[in-house]
Amino acid sequence: MTNKNRGILLVLSGPSGVGKGTVCNALRKMGTELVYSVSATTRTPREGEVHGVNYFFKSREEFSSMIESDDLLEYAEYCGNYYGTPREFVEDTLASGQDIILEIEVQGALKVKNKFPEGVFIFLLPPSLDELQSRIVTRGTETEDVIKSRMSIARDELRLIEHYDYAIVNDQVEAACHRIQAILTAERCRKERMVTTIKQWIEEVQ
Amino acid sequence: MTNKNRGILLVLSGPSGVGKGTVCNALRKMGTELVYSVSATTRTPREGEVHGVNYFFKSREEFSSMIESDDLLEYAEYCGNYYGTPREFVEDTLASGQDIILEIEVQGALKVKNKFPEGVFIFLLPPSLDELQSRIVTRGTETEDVIKSRMSIARDELRLIEHYDYAIVNDQVEAACHRIQAILTAERCRKERMVTTIKQWIEEVQ
Repeated sequence: MTNKNRGILLVLSGPSGVGKGTVCNALRKMGTELVYSVSATTRTPREGEVHGVNYFFKSREEFSSMIESDDLLEYAEYCGNYYGTPREFVEDTLASGQDIILEIEVQGALKVKNKFPEGVFIFLLPPSLDELQSRIVTRGTETEDVIKSRMSIARDELRLIEHYDYAIVNDQVEAACHRIQAILTAERCRKERMVTTIKQWIEEVQ
Repeated sequence: MTNKNRGILLVLSGPSGVGKGTVCNALRKMGTELVYSVSATTRTPREGEVHGVNYFFKSREEFSSMIESDDLLEYAEYCGNYYGTPREFVEDTLASGQDIILEIEVQGALKVKNKFPEGVFIFLLPPSLDELQSRIVTRGTETEDVIKSRMSIARDELRLIEHYDYAIVNDQVEAACHRIQAILTAERCRKERMVTTIKQWIEEVQ
């Protein structure tokens, strides 16, 4: 295979509280061969979150400056905080032939889809809506109003599943990770990645 | 999930000698959760092949009668023998919600695609054309003319890869099987399979 293929862009999205971060961390621990995109955010770090690993934690001023310089692939305000995806890192990774995963909220994912329609979009689902509410409550960092607001947003976001390629139920983190790894393996086997090689084989003989 | 989904139709195809049968047998030994379609053929059984497991071995008269009764999903003559796919078994399996794999030559696969465009079509590739020729020679059951004819057909068939969804290199049988299993897992996660469930969730709340 002489032609180096571009990397695959995996976008993992889903409602707040569904466990996107947990699944991404587990994928990393399992040694999945992926580059992990790091988002920028203005929200306060949760316990254990590390700057440059989980997020780039930015002040609102710093974030605004990134928006103005067009340094973000997408950005959105969510529950009073900004979240965004630094553009250059994603583009460089794909050009180098490495696969990259973005963990991102639903609106942001759709903006990325406009720019990278060839990306692979995975919607992470809770086992049920009740279970989603339990998870938001158990996290314990949110007030009752925030919980209600998140559940309402979650229902709206679920309607957007039609824009995605895959849907994975996060019933058990390890099982969800295995499904994502399978999707990655399958996408690496898409015939488009072999067509150039095959044409060379046929030409060499003639 | 109250709505029972239709099964997935996997079609594994590729040039003669690439190892379709070996890969299918290995998938079965690995306990892959799949129903294996059994083709009908008029060719002579090879050593170890069992009627009703590897093929339904038919006389030319029996095969012609199946064609006339429209009992075959597709059939083709290849190197002087008929091969075909009994229709009812495939349709019943899919309707029951089970996934089924067809191991089939390239022309037949394209005929199946006309009837089941929603099927998942996998093209099995040799590591190289030289390697394909070695495998046909090593099999030891073919004359030199047959080998030349098969290589010429193989090159023509390789051009048809564009009609497939996935391409898998059969460099090592176990690795090829793992890729097929990953494709099956990924296809089971296609968002189309979850859309009905999600609509029910949203309706229940409103």
